[in-house]
Amino acid sequence: MNRSDLVGLIRKKQSFLCVGLDSDIHKLPKFLLDREDPVFEFNRAIIDATLPYAVAYKPNLAFYESRGIKGLLSLERTMNYLQNFKTEAFTIADAKRGDIGNTSEQYARSVFIKGESGFEFDAITVAPYMGEDSVKPFLSFEDKWVILLALTSNKGAFDFQLIENKENGKRLFEEVLTKSSQWADESKLMYVVGATKAEMLSDIRKIVPNHFLLVPGVGAQGGSLQEVAKYGLTKECGLLVNASRSILFASNGEDFADKAAQEAKSMQNEMAEILASL
Amino acid sequence: MNRSDLVGLIRKKQSFLCVGLDSDIHKLPKFLLDREDPVFEFNRAIIDATLPYAVAYKPNLAFYESRGIKGLLSLERTMNYLQNFKTEAFTIADAKRGDIGNTSEQYARSVFIKGESGFEFDAITVAPYMGEDSVKPFLSFEDKWVILLALTSNKGAFDFQLIENKENGKRLFEEVLTKSSQWADESKLMYVVGATKAEMLSDIRKIVPNHFLLVPGVGAQGGSLQEVAKYGLTKECGLLVNASRSILFASNGEDFADKAAQEAKSMQNEMAEILASL
Repeated sequence: MNRSDLVGLIRKKQSFLCVGLDSDIHKLPKFLLDREDPVFEFNRAIIDATLPYAVAYKPNLAFYESRGIKGLLSLERTMNYLQNFKTEAFTIADAKRGDIGNTSEQYARSVFIKGESGFEFDAITVAPYMGEDSVKPFLSFEDKWVILLALTSNKGAFDFQLIENKENGKRLFEEVLTKSSQWADESKLMYVVGATKAEMLSDIRKIVPNHFLLVPGVGAQGGSLQEVAKYGLTKECGLLVNASRSILFASNGEDFADKAAQEAKSMQNEMAEILASL
Repeated sequence: MNRSDLVGLIRKKQSFLCVGLDSDIHKLPKFLLDREDPVFEFNRAIIDATLPYAVAYKPNLAFYESRGIKGLLSLERTMNYLQNFKTEAFTIADAKRGDIGNTSEQYARSVFIKGESGFEFDAITVAPYMGEDSVKPFLSFEDKWVILLALTSNKGAFDFQLIENKENGKRLFEEVLTKSSQWADESKLMYVVGATKAEMLSDIRKIVPNHFLLVPGVGAQGGSLQEVAKYGLTKECGLLVNASRSILFASNGEDFADKAAQEAKSMQNEMAEILASL
């Protein structure tokens, strides 16, 4: 999906909600566990329930890989199901990959080219530590996106991401934004910025005024949607706000999908108000 | 495998060679391609041929994930085969993972607990960008190791890893070494340091005098074993030097395993001489 289609989708649905499919099998409603593929059944129900309110889905690959081949089958079925809604949902492999060039190319093929691995995502999250040649192989696929970690939502973000460069005073996450925005433009590159650090979004917007930001940390992690919008919103929205646990596990009874829909709808309502201010 | 077993293995084999199983299906000898699982057949032959000369095997997961479920099956068969040599070979999942705490825990289970995913590695490579809580979940398994990226072998290493901290003059990779060495000691933590930056090993040894270092970049990437040993060797060796392409693809004919053995043996000979100097 290209940028103008994504912006169009946000306008149409009046939403910039991304649903994180972190479908931990240990947290699923018990009644699903006797199904052949409980994780896929769960994901399909979540997708059906939230599709009117969400513009993106983001499976975190860890929750699938941890179950080996069974987990990969659940992911494959989920991605095949999402292919039915290709123009209705942007898809993100939350993988946080990054390796030397020839290896990153393998990872890129594994998430972008269906014929090779069974998957065909629109985007992948990538870790910046190894620099340009670890990121570039992901950037050479048409209408496919890199979402680079900049400032993450967890406590450990303070360990290295805020280190100030002696040479120019820039913090590491600002160095990541500055350098990487020379590798590709806003039509192929987004950044991960945690909602728990919303006030820093204004610093981030000084460096990347137009890039889309994928913002985790609203909901279970405690970030505020209003704060994120206040500092991060652009004329074309420029935000994908992710919620995972607060939607997926809104209930663990038979009504889990209804409750997920309610939670997604409530976020979408808040987002529609925010978008109306544009 | 614990540290004293690893040191014992190095002494016994007079080798600190790690064979990187980056078994790109597009590079395999053609005659293997009509087998049911060419990658596993290739890996088994490489393992049989190199086991007298190598103390560790390191599949880079990208080369398996890029082939989807088929690739994961090749990896599972390879790891099951390596289980036959549990005391003869240390195994490393070269995955470069790292995510928020509950997600890193999923990744850890996926590489360390066979019952969950089908795999049971001794160690995993982890990216440090997200800080302490992204690394710690990997450190809570007995006799399992984290190998944290410090100074990588690729050109992009210069983009961020050498940034100097305004506060204390430490470069980012030195910050990673300093902080992370407080999270776990040398019995559970190693570091990735590229052979292409061998002269920096003496700076690294000032911070982590005893930790094992996993050193890629000798062979196809151009680093020198002698230089690595000169600056990085400790009394207990403290090095695992990886070679991938130079061994795996020493020949692409029917003699590929013999040629791989020759290449591994020649590295082992050089290593035995180095170890004799201890």
